[in-house]
Amino acid sequence: MPRLIPLLLLLLLLLLLSISISFAYPLRTPRSLAPFARRLRPRAPANYDYETRFFQQRLDHFSFADQPPFQQRFLVGSATAGWGRGDPIFFYCGNEGDIEWFAANTGFVWEFAPRFSALVVFAEHRYYGESMPFGSKERAYKDAESLSYLTAEQALADYAILLTDLKKNLSSENSPVVLFGGSYGGMLAAWMRLKYPHIAIGALASSAPILQFENIVPPETFYDLVSNDFKRESVSCFKAIKESWDALEAQGKEHNGLLKLICGRRNLNNTDALSDWLDSAYSYLAMVDYPYPSDFLMPLPAYPIKEVCKKIDNYAEGTSLLERIYAGVNIYYNYTGTVDCFDLEDDPHGMSGWGWQACTEMVMPMSSSEENSMFPAYNFDFAAYGDECVESYGVKPRPRWITTEFGGHDISKVLEKFGSNIIFSNGLLDPWSGGSVLQNISDSIIALVTPLGAHHIDLRPSTNNDPDWLVKQRESEINLIQSWISDYYQGKKGASNSM
Amino acid sequence: MPRLIPLLLLLLLLLLLSISISFAYPLRTPRSLAPFARRLRPRAPANYDYETRFFQQRLDHFSFADQPPFQQRFLVGSATAGWGRGDPIFFYCGNEGDIEWFAANTGFVWEFAPRFSALVVFAEHRYYGESMPFGSKERAYKDAESLSYLTAEQALADYAILLTDLKKNLSSENSPVVLFGGSYGGMLAAWMRLKYPHIAIGALASSAPILQFENIVPPETFYDLVSNDFKRESVSCFKAIKESWDALEAQGKEHNGLLKLICGRRNLNNTDALSDWLDSAYSYLAMVDYPYPSDFLMPLPAYPIKEVCKKIDNYAEGTSLLERIYAGVNIYYNYTGTVDCFDLEDDPHGMSGWGWQACTEMVMPMSSSEENSMFPAYNFDFAAYGDECVESYGVKPRPRWITTEFGGHDISKVLEKFGSNIIFSNGLLDPWSGGSVLQNISDSIIALVTPLGAHHIDLRPSTNNDPDWLVKQRESEINLIQSWISDYYQGKKGASNSM
Repeated sequence: MPRLIPLLLLLLLLLLLSISISFAYPLRTPRSLAPFARRLRPRAPANYDYETRFFQQRLDHFSFADQPPFQQRFLVGSATAGWGRGDPIFFYCGNEGDIEWFAANTGFVWEFAPRFSALVVFAEHRYYGESMPFGSKERAYKDAESLSYLTAEQALADYAILLTDLKKNLSSENSPVVLFGGSYGGMLAAWMRLKYPHIAIGALASSAPILQFENIVPPETFYDLVSNDFKRESVSCFKAIKESWDALEAQGKEHNGLLKLICGRRNLNNTDALSDWLDSAYSYLAMVDYPYPSDFLMPLPAYPIKEVCKKIDNYAEGTSLLERIYAGVNIYYNYTGTVDCFDLEDDPHGMSGWGWQACTEMVMPMSSSEENSMFPAYNFDFAAYGDECVESYGVKPRPRWITTEFGGHDISKVLEKFGSNIIFSNGLLDPWSGGSVLQNISDSIIALVTPLGAHHIDLRPSTNNDPDWLVKQRESEINLIQSWISDYYQGKKGASNSM
Repeated sequence: MPRLIPLLLLLLLLLLLSISISFAYPLRTPRSLAPFARRLRPRAPANYDYETRFFQQRLDHFSFADQPPFQQRFLVGSATAGWGRGDPIFFYCGNEGDIEWFAANTGFVWEFAPRFSALVVFAEHRYYGESMPFGSKERAYKDAESLSYLTAEQALADYAILLTDLKKNLSSENSPVVLFGGSYGGMLAAWMRLKYPHIAIGALASSAPILQFENIVPPETFYDLVSNDFKRESVSCFKAIKESWDALEAQGKEHNGLLKLICGRRNLNNTDALSDWLDSAYSYLAMVDYPYPSDFLMPLPAYPIKEVCKKIDNYAEGTSLLERIYAGVNIYYNYTGTVDCFDLEDDPHGMSGWGWQACTEMVMPMSSSEENSMFPAYNFDFAAYGDECVESYGVKPRPRWITTEFGGHDISKVLEKFGSNIIFSNGLLDPWSGGSVLQNISDSIIALVTPLGAHHIDLRPSTNNDPDWLVKQRESEINLIQSWISDYYQGKKGASNSM
């Protein structure tokens, strides 16, 4: 019994946290693309040496309103011994979290930079980590007015200005810049190559669901893919989960029913929070269903869904359906001893950056189909979604803005003869892959698809357990990046010869 | 003598106006790209039928700040008998003036649209004409805060949203959109094709000086080209003008010297305003040095510089240098009976929209060389320029922003394999041509250059006096546009066949 106490305490914490992850369950706010990033303290980055710097940015690049500037954090790799003026810059477009955490989890960039004598830069996204407008997170997240400038376009302009200034300060204006990003950061990398071709020669956009908007891909895609990941491991596991929601609802209706499960939580009088907690576990498991043990979101075994399903399929472990479900998701949540990674005071107003972004620009409609999904059937309802955003953040979403600003509809035709040098890499186990680019668009806008890959696995540090397909995928990426860089220098040479 | 009074009155008006055109002379604020647009009442558009509509726009597209929306005016061609769903849309990107004036002076779009069954749309630029934020020009132009959102990026987003909405309302989402624009409008058209390739399939950017920024082209370019236009007609005329500035200065130092020239103007105790007035005349003459009589800025004869120089070179007309100069520029300013085209109350705060834009983003450095220019030597001084902007508008310019946002440096290399379907058309008599793209960048980013063309002459209504080279230039443009449209429909067909 005493051994159970820390576990129950942890579960309580997790439940509290899961509530702030998103809105009430039936609304199905899209998951954060890099869930938990905002509340995990970064683990010490393995062997990556960098300097931390700050750069003063405008709050609104697209107006001349008199707003206070803010300090953007960025990391510059110290191992620049081989780097000289004009050599490449590898620039990671920070996403919705602490940049040190992304730096620690994007080994790909650090490992391959020396081969290109490239300078590594990781830039933090505004309103995350230490890059807070108005001087503090509390003030930046105060209300809709202070959050107004947390948008993707402003973040891209930050990167464009930072890069321009950095190159000038290094007297290295001719350095080719290659962009990197995973998940939302991958979307930013792809969009930045499209919007700022004069600043970056190419982008590796890993697991970047730039088509997960409006009616470009079916709204069921995400949850169908999560469900497929479970069905793929075990049909009975898929079915058990699909049946569990009713059981959960029934349990919830008993007096104190939920308390039996999670213990110590007061005022919990509906099952929504618990459903959301389970939904999160399944969705994140699908994202990090890596072929080797990992600890991106949580310490997990290789192919964690297989392990979860083993528990769910194991009738010996418990008698009731819910007890088996609980044993399964414990694989995901059960990592005692790391509670100090959480910071409950991180978000004092219950507002999260990604929640704001999802309620303004990043409106990714998500439904759950009756047939293919193991989740309760749900049709995305924009009106309800919008109301919830007004209530939570005092802001109305603009659901068509992202596709107006960045495109998405009919993307193959639009980019067939426009744009170049983008890699869209995706693993098909990743539920976000359904909203990404999975087919080559042109000779130089390339889709690299791995059937067994999960969420931006290619960007992760290499391990001794990397399967062959992953090693090959990274080689393909490096070869493409090499060709962009060679083309660039070739062009420069041609230009100076002809002068 | 009585015949002189209206002329002198007119000169007085012109002088008053010229003061508000730009800052004090030595600062050399760049000319408005479509000078006088903001104060000319549009002449009745020839035969172009259109409906005037209004569309509600956000004030700041790139933030979620709670700002009042405004009504953007746009004109939709009525002659849409031949137009059906899916047919092309020809979209003119309005520049810094009343959109009806641009519609009246952009005959090219109206004349060729029927050949493509294209719907014609002219959209007004925010803060010009009737497209005023805050409900009125007076409030929109009140101060730096109210003017904050007068930027090119916001204008492009206006156009992107307007087009997206318009196509949706017409149930014509598959219509290919071709962008048109002259001068600043041409810059917007080119930038829009680059930034919003999913919204427009191509752009004809006529006389669009997208390289007139930072240190991309030499700052002397503009005035050197103006000077060349005069020298080309008459070396003695060029010399006379070059010598006239000292004479003017000397005359100004005599008591009431200037009053002798312009009459009735009080408190005029330096020659700056008069110099600026002459500078304007020469610069605008170079822009509109058309091969046929025209009335774009003023009613003028064919090749007006030739006529101006005839006067300046004609010693019989007057004895003194300044009197000959005066006789010359009278060709430009002397169009009696049209004073009602001016509206002195147009700009009650002495703030002009282009002045604001030049003091914020559109920082186009302009110097005047000792050797090649007929203007007084001057080196662009950004510090002084910035101070003047702070004094006049309460705003600091951001001189590197346009090139950060839109590029410009090394444009041939950047766009060689990125982007497509842009025509940069330029006439070499136009002093703005020096800041534009004069060489093909790729197979589909094309420069069309005419040695005898002036400012966006190709967009003007066709006349019986059009020289052959102009007829051919327009044919080339039409053929290119035809190929974009054919490619687009071909691609659509391919896409639907393969489904």
